Amino acid sequence: MSKMMKLNKVKAEKPTLILDKERVLRNIQKMAEKAQRNGVRFRPHFKTHQSAQIGEWFRKFGVSSITVSSVDMADYFSKYGWKDITIAFPVNIREINKINALAQEITLHLLVESKEAAYFLRENLKCAVNVWIEIDTGNVRTGIPHTDSDKVVELAHEIEKSPYMSFRGLLTFAGHSYRTRSIEQIKQVHHDSVGSMNHLRDILKENGFSAIQLSVGDTPTCSIGDDFSRVDEIRPGTFIFNDIKQLKLGSCTEKDIAVVVACPVVAKYKERNEIIIYGGAAYLSKDFIERKDGTKIFGLIALPGQKGWGPSINNTYISSVTQEHGIVKTDDIFFDKIKIGDILMVIPLHCCLTVNLMRIFHTLDGELIEY
Amino acid sequence: MSKMMKLNKVKAEKPTLILDKERVLRNIQKMAEKAQRNGVRFRPHFKTHQSAQIGEWFRKFGVSSITVSSVDMADYFSKYGWKDITIAFPVNIREINKINALAQEITLHLLVESKEAAYFLRENLKCAVNVWIEIDTGNVRTGIPHTDSDKVVELAHEIEKSPYMSFRGLLTFAGHSYRTRSIEQIKQVHHDSVGSMNHLRDILKENGFSAIQLSVGDTPTCSIGDDFSRVDEIRPGTFIFNDIKQLKLGSCTEKDIAVVVACPVVAKYKERNEIIIYGGAAYLSKDFIERKDGTKIFGLIALPGQKGWGPSINNTYISSVTQEHGIVKTDDIFFDKIKIGDILMVIPLHCCLTVNLMRIFHTLDGELIEY
Repeated sequence: MSKMMKLNKVKAEKPTLILDKERVLRNIQKMAEKAQRNGVRFRPHFKTHQSAQIGEWFRKFGVSSITVSSVDMADYFSKYGWKDITIAFPVNIREINKINALAQEITLHLLVESKEAAYFLRENLKCAVNVWIEIDTGNVRTGIPHTDSDKVVELAHEIEKSPYMSFRGLLTFAGHSYRTRSIEQIKQVHHDSVGSMNHLRDILKENGFSAIQLSVGDTPTCSIGDDFSRVDEIRPGTFIFNDIKQLKLGSCTEKDIAVVVACPVVAKYKERNEIIIYGGAAYLSKDFIERKDGTKIFGLIALPGQKGWGPSINNTYISSVTQEHGIVKTDDIFFDKIKIGDILMVIPLHCCLTVNLMRIFHTLDGELIEY
Repeated sequence: MSKMMKLNKVKAEKPTLILDKERVLRNIQKMAEKAQRNGVRFRPHFKTHQSAQIGEWFRKFGVSSITVSSVDMADYFSKYGWKDITIAFPVNIREINKINALAQEITLHLLVESKEAAYFLRENLKCAVNVWIEIDTGNVRTGIPHTDSDKVVELAHEIEKSPYMSFRGLLTFAGHSYRTRSIEQIKQVHHDSVGSMNHLRDILKENGFSAIQLSVGDTPTCSIGDDFSRVDEIRPGTFIFNDIKQLKLGSCTEKDIAVVVACPVVAKYKERNEIIIYGGAAYLSKDFIERKDGTKIFGLIALPGQKGWGPSINNTYISSVTQEHGIVKTDDIFFDKIKIGDILMVIPLHCCLTVNLMRIFHTLDGELIEY
């Protein structure tokens, strides 16, 4: 029985998250080699896969330090032998007990970006942690604006006052790379962001802070950029699977996308060339991109192949999702090929949110990976 | 210790789904009484809460038949004693084995809307099921368009050919009620939808089909409408919790909203009056509504109260979410009141998707309800 048959007969009675392990390993290798070439620490963001088993795949590429987005995730991976973890989210002081417990077990890195948080930690930490100041290099989400060097220096002094906090460096997420329209713009975001971080490092040096490290890391700049000589660490996450967002940004090709959701066809409407799949927001999330003409795209569509899945189908995309339903808009040619009960492979718009919802990977070899 | 203190100290270290049981019971009672007054069967949609324990709360209001959106959900509730279940989703023929197993245990109602699905069921069913033809009364998602009565009659004949399929009636989800701008428009959708369904029933009668039942049920028309005399069954789901979508449509008041997500404040930016909460798309979903000026709203904000939470705060809303982060836009007054480590109560934009993500309710009395 071919893999396609196995897939259709065994694994896709309902929306099923399919993972191409070869592609995953290739994606990890490529990023690990880029980090090595540049002499920077590769601290991948594990929030994209959330899986202890997939985490293991990184080890043979020399990865020993990781990034997560919550205390719970840090706790989970610490139980699987990861001993050097950055929680890349403004420290949540309500979880101080869990933070203290974790800091006893592992080398824990926290993000601080306000005096309030620094004061709280000074009074409540019971164990040594590494602290990074988060810098906003233009994303306008979290972090001290890169232009506000006084605030950065002041906070660095506050952090140094605590016996349990070691000030390690500056960390940024240049998420404005997701709002670019060309490879050149992504390169510019990378260049400017790294420049701002270095400028702040220089100012810190002038103020007596030595050995300040710089940590950067969103997938677009890490995938597109090739010069990381002026930073110490990269933290991309999405690159492991990639998705339509990365594809449209130009930071991956379709063959670098390593996960799809196999979804059964349940209805068809010839009069509007729409195919309904069992696979809505509860599986794919409600994230979308908008084309210039206002069309929203919640995912692209491929067909199951002999191994994995084929290329995305022309003129075919998910135009809308509700909790269980996905509406696939297509043309006459593809519409007529598809029957009720067939499987369509949804190439996810945003792999992190899709993976967060699905909770179990099925590899092309039939292995199940729960997380 | 007051409930608010308990809430802040015990239950909201991280995003926590809070449920006001009194409001839930009131919402159920109101809808159950409306169904009773109208002499229609109340078959609530359990996809909104997905919880066996909350399911039990319906029993004292005389509910014995329910709606779900997947075979898995039907299977789950059948294990908790529900013996009359409609899967309100076009039958997924790939799950035929599970369907046959379920049909042996309970009175199972399936939706069919194509000859292909009817043929497949005729050949593969091993046990009796009830079949409803899904009608599209204007939502344009699934169902045979209500104008296409020939197709409905033809399909009804096909269904009747099978010894295992009993044709029960017509079912619709008038989801276009969600695209209305006033109570009057919702009433119009209800009136037109019920009218179309009755017209089709008359045609079926002329074609020899008797005892055809009509099933309707989206929360806006069920909450706003008061005349259900011309249908046999209502299937609302969201009414149990309600949310900002329902509030903006006018189908509930703020005091009818029965769930919020308690989210820790992790950062503040005075220069842009933005508060960052631990509570992003992985907890709330990425669903939003758009105001006329293009502003997107992913949730509203309240403060913890002595019991539950207070009214929504003026000029304050979630303007954007990423996987873990929620960005709360507000004014000077509220901004200055809030400190890092405080809890904000997020009134969800779309309760079904939020509940689907959270997986555990915390009642105001400190009870945990997993699902």
